[in-house]
Amino acid sequence: MDHQAEIDVRAAEIARLEAEIADLQRAAGHDPARSPFAPDSFPDLPEIAGVRFAAVNAGVRYTTGRLDLMLAEIAPGAAMAGTFTRSATRAAPVLWCQDRIAAQQGAVEAPMAIVVNAGNANAFTGRNGMDAVETVMQSTADVIGIPLTNTYMASTGVIGEPLPAERITQKLEQLKAALSPGAIDQAAHAIMTTDTFPKGAAAAANLDETKIQVAGIAKGSGMIAPDMATMLVFIFTDAAIAQPLLQSTVADLTDQTFNCITVDSDTSTSDTLLVAATGAAAMDIIQDETDPRLAGFRTALRAVMRDLAIQVVKDGEGASKFGAITVDGAENNTAARRIGLAIANSPLVKTALAGEDPNWGRIVMAVGKSGEKADRDLLGIRFGDIVVAEGGWVSPGYSEEAGAAYMKQSELEIGVDVGIGDGKATVWTCDLTHGYITINADYRS
Amino acid sequence: MDHQAEIDVRAAEIARLEAEIADLQRAAGHDPARSPFAPDSFPDLPEIAGVRFAAVNAGVRYTTGRLDLMLAEIAPGAAMAGTFTRSATRAAPVLWCQDRIAAQQGAVEAPMAIVVNAGNANAFTGRNGMDAVETVMQSTADVIGIPLTNTYMASTGVIGEPLPAERITQKLEQLKAALSPGAIDQAAHAIMTTDTFPKGAAAAANLDETKIQVAGIAKGSGMIAPDMATMLVFIFTDAAIAQPLLQSTVADLTDQTFNCITVDSDTSTSDTLLVAATGAAAMDIIQDETDPRLAGFRTALRAVMRDLAIQVVKDGEGASKFGAITVDGAENNTAARRIGLAIANSPLVKTALAGEDPNWGRIVMAVGKSGEKADRDLLGIRFGDIVVAEGGWVSPGYSEEAGAAYMKQSELEIGVDVGIGDGKATVWTCDLTHGYITINADYRS
Repeated sequence: MDHQAEIDVRAAEIARLEAEIADLQRAAGHDPARSPFAPDSFPDLPEIAGVRFAAVNAGVRYTTGRLDLMLAEIAPGAAMAGTFTRSATRAAPVLWCQDRIAAQQGAVEAPMAIVVNAGNANAFTGRNGMDAVETVMQSTADVIGIPLTNTYMASTGVIGEPLPAERITQKLEQLKAALSPGAIDQAAHAIMTTDTFPKGAAAAANLDETKIQVAGIAKGSGMIAPDMATMLVFIFTDAAIAQPLLQSTVADLTDQTFNCITVDSDTSTSDTLLVAATGAAAMDIIQDETDPRLAGFRTALRAVMRDLAIQVVKDGEGASKFGAITVDGAENNTAARRIGLAIANSPLVKTALAGEDPNWGRIVMAVGKSGEKADRDLLGIRFGDIVVAEGGWVSPGYSEEAGAAYMKQSELEIGVDVGIGDGKATVWTCDLTHGYITINADYRS
Repeated sequence: MDHQAEIDVRAAEIARLEAEIADLQRAAGHDPARSPFAPDSFPDLPEIAGVRFAAVNAGVRYTTGRLDLMLAEIAPGAAMAGTFTRSATRAAPVLWCQDRIAAQQGAVEAPMAIVVNAGNANAFTGRNGMDAVETVMQSTADVIGIPLTNTYMASTGVIGEPLPAERITQKLEQLKAALSPGAIDQAAHAIMTTDTFPKGAAAAANLDETKIQVAGIAKGSGMIAPDMATMLVFIFTDAAIAQPLLQSTVADLTDQTFNCITVDSDTSTSDTLLVAATGAAAMDIIQDETDPRLAGFRTALRAVMRDLAIQVVKDGEGASKFGAITVDGAENNTAARRIGLAIANSPLVKTALAGEDPNWGRIVMAVGKSGEKADRDLLGIRFGDIVVAEGGWVSPGYSEEAGAAYMKQSELEIGVDVGIGDGKATVWTCDLTHGYITINADYRS
């Protein structure tokens, strides 16, 4: 037997043993196909007055009969806000939604509708891309009986393949008939692609005498060939808030939440966040920044956005560790976030997390490459409460053993004090593992 | 036996089989510890008149007796230029060299010396870092008999540990005694850390009647815990060129070569490139940009810099594929390079290369995230000569089979036509493999 044949025998045996390990993990209750951070069940989300949901299997791509198409209908009088990917190669549905949001300046008198499909991102599909969006949106307007300007769409899945619009349009009547205030969990399932669990979050706030609710769903978990890591987020509230104020609030909170997470540093062509405020709660509308009730609303909305953002990271492809990186003492908040993301995106930091390696030198490297102002000799680094480095060198009280023990936790807190200003930010990331390589490199091989 | 114990038995068996595979690969002539792109032997570099080298084992960190300390001595009358890491957390030797280069404006009357150690990067070592540099440089000045201002230093290896300067200074007399014009290969070995092969390159040019030589060495291969991916490059030529012109030429060529390569997007705190021009060739000095001989010199220097840059990528940690990414039609050359690096740094593109997956959608994604001007519907993508996408959609003549066959090559050419301007750049990258994760995540586990 030549060398290669002997190697092949052993490689086959390794594959067999790996499959047995996966079976044993499942038997022990750890499904290797599920993120170790997946919750036991989908959270019990409150119904939001003025919003109804439905989901069906439309067979856009998946042939397993799974839910892959959702409709959300929002009652008249609502406001819609949105933030989107900054990619220069944005997909057609993103361009459609951006145009709609830009034209929204007040409460909308007719109902609004959001249609979302999984399996095909309708991205890089040339002129056909916008044609498909227009076809689906016109059908939606006709079926629901609303103006075309009140329709929104998001798509996630493979790119470069034409969206079979008719598979969606032929399901719209069925979706309309099934609309229900309690079906948000089905909607959360229908928007999944490579996600290993559906993501939902809720919060409430008391604004004077009125209790308002916020509930949202999200998808996104990195990328899998040939799907894009689209992050889609849909949030609903019964609060009454003027559209321009909702838009500026959502944009600001996006910077603190979804723009502070990273799985692999790559940016989808389809990222979409829509927030609908129905105004169905018994309250006067919040018109401007001076309204004292804005703070309570912001807190509830931020909690939902932050919760969903963290769930997206925890479902990162191959993730076995979750890291919260807090940067203090940067030149300003923007610099702090950039430094945090330089650390969170560094392959060397992420592989160190995977290897449970307290490799603070890689954090110094990442601070240095961020392009932001830093002084090597003022830098401080913490792992949880452990002071690792201070004043430009390893801390006299630090022991490698203490650092190594800390890194064995599955949720890690890394603190960086830049030491030159008041800027502060927290970003969230996951580790870079063999699982990520397997999902993204070995998928088609 | 419980589940975990059964899993552990299989994991141990997998480790045993992997070791057997490595042994078989070595028996078949493929050393798994060597890059598949490693040349059979170190190239035969010409001697450069006016430069002598020596290398010894100083035991700075390595206890195996390997060469880890080199000295280069450059004859009087030379010019020295340099480019350095842009990291905000630069190591002490980098700061030292930057000060020296900034003070160089003409040919230097006394000899110059470059001291380089491997094993300890003298980075993030607080005030002690510069103290160690000053100690080594003062000793070097004394031993060689030159002014302190003519001494240069570079260090690569672990960070955060004090550099044992005396292990270097006690070897300087021995190094001086061993200086030889032909010892550049020993110098190339002495500067290696995680490199799997020593790197050297040479080129010559005829400037009017005079033949000039350029020869250089480099180290750098990604990072390995707890070492930094320092890239060190030392190039020598017998051409006569004024220092300011040499400096501007080196800076310009660095942008076209070493600033166009990426292994893992992380930036070392110690990257150093020094170029010494001895002027020993029989020629009048090239004083300014109008000298027609400058073009020939530039071509030779660029060839050496490009060759060494590509060797660094080909020795990237875990690399099994080499990719040259050429971007045309960008807004300008800077935009083209940024787009190229966005592609070259994308974990999703790099895992697609590893998986031999012709996933052009990930290239579209990377163009979109680069932050540079692009129009989705003008974008074209090629794999070698295969037109994959054009005018915003997959090319009608493209077949997935042809793309998949192309990706099986070990050296890949990816072309991107942005379609909006005249900007052009080529960048070089390697794939992201299980090998990278193993080196960087599993090292300490």
